[in-house]
Amino acid sequence: MAHRVSPLAPQAFPELPPVGGVALAAAETGIRYKNRPDVLLAVMPPGTTVAGTFTRSKSRSAPVDWCAAHLWGGTARAVVINAGNANAFTGKAGVATVTAVAKAAAKLLSCKPGEIFQASTGVIGEPLDPSFITGALPQLAAEAGADRWAMAARAIMTTDTFPKVATARVKLGGKTVTINGIAKGSGMIAPDMATMLSFIFTDAALPHRILQKLLSQAVDRSFNCVTVDGDTSTSDTVLMFATGAAGGALTGLRGAADPRLQPFARALDALCLDLAQQVARDGEGAEKLIEIAVTGAENDKAAHRIAMTIANSPLVKTAVAGEDANWGRVVMAIGKAGEKAIRDRLRIRIGGVTVARNGMRDPSYREADIMPHIKGRHVVIEADVGVGKGKARVWTCDLTHRYIDINGSYRS
Amino acid sequence: MAHRVSPLAPQAFPELPPVGGVALAAAETGIRYKNRPDVLLAVMPPGTTVAGTFTRSKSRSAPVDWCAAHLWGGTARAVVINAGNANAFTGKAGVATVTAVAKAAAKLLSCKPGEIFQASTGVIGEPLDPSFITGALPQLAAEAGADRWAMAARAIMTTDTFPKVATARVKLGGKTVTINGIAKGSGMIAPDMATMLSFIFTDAALPHRILQKLLSQAVDRSFNCVTVDGDTSTSDTVLMFATGAAGGALTGLRGAADPRLQPFARALDALCLDLAQQVARDGEGAEKLIEIAVTGAENDKAAHRIAMTIANSPLVKTAVAGEDANWGRVVMAIGKAGEKAIRDRLRIRIGGVTVARNGMRDPSYREADIMPHIKGRHVVIEADVGVGKGKARVWTCDLTHRYIDINGSYRS
Repeated sequence: MAHRVSPLAPQAFPELPPVGGVALAAAETGIRYKNRPDVLLAVMPPGTTVAGTFTRSKSRSAPVDWCAAHLWGGTARAVVINAGNANAFTGKAGVATVTAVAKAAAKLLSCKPGEIFQASTGVIGEPLDPSFITGALPQLAAEAGADRWAMAARAIMTTDTFPKVATARVKLGGKTVTINGIAKGSGMIAPDMATMLSFIFTDAALPHRILQKLLSQAVDRSFNCVTVDGDTSTSDTVLMFATGAAGGALTGLRGAADPRLQPFARALDALCLDLAQQVARDGEGAEKLIEIAVTGAENDKAAHRIAMTIANSPLVKTAVAGEDANWGRVVMAIGKAGEKAIRDRLRIRIGGVTVARNGMRDPSYREADIMPHIKGRHVVIEADVGVGKGKARVWTCDLTHRYIDINGSYRS
Repeated sequence: MAHRVSPLAPQAFPELPPVGGVALAAAETGIRYKNRPDVLLAVMPPGTTVAGTFTRSKSRSAPVDWCAAHLWGGTARAVVINAGNANAFTGKAGVATVTAVAKAAAKLLSCKPGEIFQASTGVIGEPLDPSFITGALPQLAAEAGADRWAMAARAIMTTDTFPKVATARVKLGGKTVTINGIAKGSGMIAPDMATMLSFIFTDAALPHRILQKLLSQAVDRSFNCVTVDGDTSTSDTVLMFATGAAGGALTGLRGAADPRLQPFARALDALCLDLAQQVARDGEGAEKLIEIAVTGAENDKAAHRIAMTIANSPLVKTAVAGEDANWGRVVMAIGKAGEKAIRDRLRIRIGGVTVARNGMRDPSYREADIMPHIKGRHVVIEADVGVGKGKARVWTCDLTHRYIDINGSYRS
């Protein structure tokens, strides 16, 4: 399952600094992979607040059920993540596994099992023996350290071709706080593999309710704006932890819109978008990053739906892969999205060049004008649907032969 | 753009008999293709009733707008179809073209322009010069004959690898009536090509309103149950014409549910399903026909949505292409469909073998049991979602390298 690193991988990765209060450790337990870390433990101090967003799938994995059930406690002491087995569609055995892992970790950390958050990624439908994880926990807890971020990002990979990390520093409550994020995946990536996972850690002091609101906003503008194949995993999870170790707790916070939070909110948005774009850049077989901006829709939700319909169209994605300036397929995708669009006001631009307007090809458009753009690594498609002021921007990758190689021939 | 004939093509095609009152002719006009017929004219006698269903796209082609506007007149004298240019996203020029074609044909046949129906398939966004068609009409009208069905089916092809035809004979009103159907396409087929088209002709005597109801029912159960890539064309059109030449008009018909109509309705359903499956069998790059049956859904609409979500999942389609018994992806697709499904009651069967039940892998399931089925040309996936009595059955094809070849490298 070794694949060459995506040509869209970032040129350089930042080195992640410690986040006050967060200690990390990874182990090779052999759940599925050999000779690489596959279980990650992150330990946080008492009082750490937690926020999370999860897949909307109706067949969620056992760890997602666990996290969603315990999120409203509002505090976390640890997150345990494994790669190689998604613990999804595993019935009562799956519930027993997450319960066993939570109890074992809670005993080591002297906390409640509900403060142990979990995520699993890998094969669907195979029982996950908890002893792989519970057997590794004592040593992981003993050796956890503040400077293991690169290893942490590698421990949660499945068929990712590069580890995904991002970091930010921002002022909050008069203190400089750090936000670190790691992520894996690119949709339902590979044969048996599932899942987009991301874990974000900060030493900011933020109440659970505010943290949840800030995270939900950021996820809507980032992870929910990328797609590789439109296939929703059973296990998608974004968890965020705030240890408060930086101090600077704000008093009298009435909500996430409080002006004092905005620099932090903007930094979190940017960090999530960075990680989300890294996921699109690592889509299976990706050769080009496609950015789709829709304007003029009835509202932002309609714009998002139109943009995602274009982004998920196999015909648009194969055209970009083939460097074919086939804007008629964008018209097709807008038409099938089911949202209001005024055909005779449609305007489409590729790489900043107007190819169609007022519902027909622009008389001055020459295909040669956009070919240099289409032959590049980053293709930008803009569509104005002529109805209102709704807008959205999403990212995907092209659909190439390697997508089929990766997804069709894994087990044969 | 010549592709080898799909390995899923029917072993033999029926020879289509004449349909009383219908005369056909095709011409080579060079709209886009050379050395093959690309314009088809079918002429029907005065009093012929018409029914139609069209794409739900919000960016419909000019011929679709034309047909939809004139359908409610209820009568037709001719249908004119061209391949090579979809006359879609062509603005006012597109409207001028369909108007010119209708007027020219109406003059030849001494009828109203609104009785001339039209369909176009091919490139999106290129103006279609009406003179290709109007120039050919006089000779087409002069030479039209009753026995040109095979040529008619070929004249409407774009990148189809085989012509699609079906025929049926059934009793109606004490007479034996004939139903002939032709179709082209397999979703948004090829680079610039769009469109699923089908034209059905009968010599039965049926009022417009009843014909419309019977056709709409049949299309819901057939063409609306196939998908290749989930991409909806700007131009999808099914038109049906009833000349009444066989006689046997029924009196006192209160609706399409009249018991006297049922043999005809069943024959029409079967004929549409036959043509629709031929479209799926000619999906780009298809190596396997995939049949998906969903039961236990909240209602039939929910079942249809779940089935289409499985059918459109690139991960399910690539797994079938790779002969990978990856039923976890079916679980994933059910989860993302957004319809009610009880995870812990899910049951999945492949080729009649139970692989999962009660929300987990069946303990007695062995992958070897289903491998002979998965290696065949027709893969059947059944899923019961454990909620209610809704059911649906849809057809698609696998996603192979040839899909990407056909769709990504046309113009480069």
